[in-house]
Amino acid sequence: MSKKQINTKVLSGFVELLPKEQILFDNIKNIVEKSYKSAGYVAIDTPVIEKSEVLFAKAGGDTEKQVYRFTKGDNDLSLRFDLTVPFARYVSEHYNDLVFPFKRYHIAKVYRGERAQKGRYREFYQADIDIVSEDSLSVMYDVDIISTLAKTIENLCNLCSLGNFKMKISNRKIWDGFFEEFSISGEQKASIMNIIDKKAKITAEVFDTELSERVKNPNIEKLIKELFELEFIPNVGVSIPEKYHSDFAFINNNEKMKQGIRELEVVMKSLETISKDRFVIDLSIVRGLDYYTGTVFETFLENYPEFGSVSSGGRYENLCDNYTDKKICGVGGSIGLSRLFIPLIEDEKIENKWDGLLDVLVLPQGENCYLKATEVKNQITECMNGICKTSIIYENKKFKKLMEYANKLGAKYVVIIGEDEVANNTISVKNMITGEQQTVSINDALKIIKEKI
Amino acid sequence: MSKKQINTKVLSGFVELLPKEQILFDNIKNIVEKSYKSAGYVAIDTPVIEKSEVLFAKAGGDTEKQVYRFTKGDNDLSLRFDLTVPFARYVSEHYNDLVFPFKRYHIAKVYRGERAQKGRYREFYQADIDIVSEDSLSVMYDVDIISTLAKTIENLCNLCSLGNFKMKISNRKIWDGFFEEFSISGEQKASIMNIIDKKAKITAEVFDTELSERVKNPNIEKLIKELFELEFIPNVGVSIPEKYHSDFAFINNNEKMKQGIRELEVVMKSLETISKDRFVIDLSIVRGLDYYTGTVFETFLENYPEFGSVSSGGRYENLCDNYTDKKICGVGGSIGLSRLFIPLIEDEKIENKWDGLLDVLVLPQGENCYLKATEVKNQITECMNGICKTSIIYENKKFKKLMEYANKLGAKYVVIIGEDEVANNTISVKNMITGEQQTVSINDALKIIKEKI
Repeated sequence: MSKKQINTKVLSGFVELLPKEQILFDNIKNIVEKSYKSAGYVAIDTPVIEKSEVLFAKAGGDTEKQVYRFTKGDNDLSLRFDLTVPFARYVSEHYNDLVFPFKRYHIAKVYRGERAQKGRYREFYQADIDIVSEDSLSVMYDVDIISTLAKTIENLCNLCSLGNFKMKISNRKIWDGFFEEFSISGEQKASIMNIIDKKAKITAEVFDTELSERVKNPNIEKLIKELFELEFIPNVGVSIPEKYHSDFAFINNNEKMKQGIRELEVVMKSLETISKDRFVIDLSIVRGLDYYTGTVFETFLENYPEFGSVSSGGRYENLCDNYTDKKICGVGGSIGLSRLFIPLIEDEKIENKWDGLLDVLVLPQGENCYLKATEVKNQITECMNGICKTSIIYENKKFKKLMEYANKLGAKYVVIIGEDEVANNTISVKNMITGEQQTVSINDALKIIKEKI
Repeated sequence: MSKKQINTKVLSGFVELLPKEQILFDNIKNIVEKSYKSAGYVAIDTPVIEKSEVLFAKAGGDTEKQVYRFTKGDNDLSLRFDLTVPFARYVSEHYNDLVFPFKRYHIAKVYRGERAQKGRYREFYQADIDIVSEDSLSVMYDVDIISTLAKTIENLCNLCSLGNFKMKISNRKIWDGFFEEFSISGEQKASIMNIIDKKAKITAEVFDTELSERVKNPNIEKLIKELFELEFIPNVGVSIPEKYHSDFAFINNNEKMKQGIRELEVVMKSLETISKDRFVIDLSIVRGLDYYTGTVFETFLENYPEFGSVSSGGRYENLCDNYTDKKICGVGGSIGLSRLFIPLIEDEKIENKWDGLLDVLVLPQGENCYLKATEVKNQITECMNGICKTSIIYENKKFKKLMEYANKLGAKYVVIIGEDEVANNTISVKNMITGEQQTVSINDALKIIKEKI
């Protein structure tokens, strides 16, 4: 077969970055990991390949169609399509060895064979956090998840100059209690929730028309619209504006709505101590129908509305019901790392965040200087205790060519070892930003580099 | 289907660690990454899924049988079985955008459906480094690869108290030149190289018998045994002991052997500046037949001979010949992270290296203290700039139960916020190692924690 016939491009929907871009993406991933870790979440690492019966215990429909599924020997296998199902399996399997409440993070690739398009990948990184426990878990853990994600996204926005973001918070119990009040359930409830979920993406007119078509009751329609005005007032709490109080007198006897509002109040009060304007109540946040049972939230970058929610999650009641009779409840959230950052990196929208592939490049001038230069390189590496990226180039090329190489790699310092330097036991250090060059002893050179890096 | 019918164990040959073990494995992985980075290697990240025609352009036989291969739509796909083939594809695809010599590291999972047994996994981490360039590459880069791996393994041995290790170094040109000298090639050469490769694993008697059966010439057999005594003498160089010099007079006219010895000498001279006794010449290191063309090396832990070589590699001439007409030569090596460390972790042979899942645990005593405690937790996280793992527990349980939780997570400090502390705006800090407890202002508490962590 001719070499030309083998196409070396990655498959459609898959991502592969150049070293410069990769460093940026890895920095982003490291910031997420550091933020999760510092908030007390611990790492897990599960296999990419799972038994299909494990993955499909709950999933179905579209998810199942997208999965990379195959057999090997007698095994029906699949690549994981999210990090939640493997987490549920992990908790079920290791239940006796885990300490609850269990706070875990998992940053890893997942696989979905969906139609490839910009920002939709078939292999992509998710960065999940969850807190789970048996039977019950204080609503304060919802605060832990939301504030950890907020802090993480703040760190990312600072690194990448992405500007401001808002987190919109709701509680599913409020809607569940509301619909119970008016005996709305099943398909009708699903269809109303569906249009509530779309509220932010459609015009007010379309929303009103769709809502009235689905609710078919002007009074309930009015109440739904009033409920959207639920607000948090610092030092007071979460409540419906006073003008609607008489309309909502029924809440006093609706335990579910009351609980939802109480939970939302606890969450908002705690988050308010972190930021006065980052966290807002928005009852149009619904996040699917089955899974979530309390707090739900989504996150929006003010400068990049086109990304939709960049971090979402919420509270659930029974994570492991497919695998164990233990009732494991929890709260979690996720940042879609690839979906957000790969387009930003590829479109060069994260400017000037490149830090160079190297800190120091050692340049021996001619083969007679190789041994000395290698020793110097080793001394720099040793002395900097792993924090300085130091390399060396052994090429019999003109000095200008070697400096071009240093520039392409973004080296901050070049250490030149020529025959003079070998003879005098000195080295020349060139600051690539200022252009300044000094010939000094190796110890002085180490001091210069150590100060600046 | 009953819940009991879904087995939540990972598939045979796959690995999943508990959080305590995972932290240790991740520390190990981080040390490798930090060591590679500080030696000027840059990260790449390629898809786990490749087109089968890409993976099988070179492979065949056993490798092909072990691969996880499947179709999705019209695509014939496979999971990567090593990191070298994807690297060759990466270099071919991005040739115009890379700066040569290109030094890359890649630490990632690879997949082989081989028979599962202890220390052999179907999904496992490899940690590769390579340096490639077009047409030619100084033998000093062999030193770069070997010394980087040596430094990395030294760091790992220090972290895990694994003791001493040796790196055995050879050069394939010496054997290739030797066999050319005596017109030994094809199957006979392969069969002799094969028994040379096994020399360290069999008795001297078995080796002698096998060697003479394959060589079928007492004179050549004698020369082979003498060649094993090739030695490096500091300030002199690499040579055959003087007593054999007359036997090896032919080397003066054998360019390949001379070049192999010269290369080995350059490598040994440079490595000697790093350590006097870590690097030894051992011509029984062969490493397969086709791929390597110069320097080859293997690494052995003195306390764990049962692992065999824990890090191997060498020099190759044509990495990308299946994908491009460009001649890309290089040198590389790899550490088998999972193969080495998963058994050590599972058998608890790496003692006492556990650093705790947490640094600081904040314990509010009762719901009235939740808000204050949450603020304190956020202050600690903020003030420690991400280097301190801080968590909080919201449980209405007895103090003793909460302290048990702190102990299980290995917290170094517990910060207690009770109603007294809320009233007086103080916090109590308990050092979990000394048992000492102080009630102080939040600022003093931050100082105490900052000093110690």
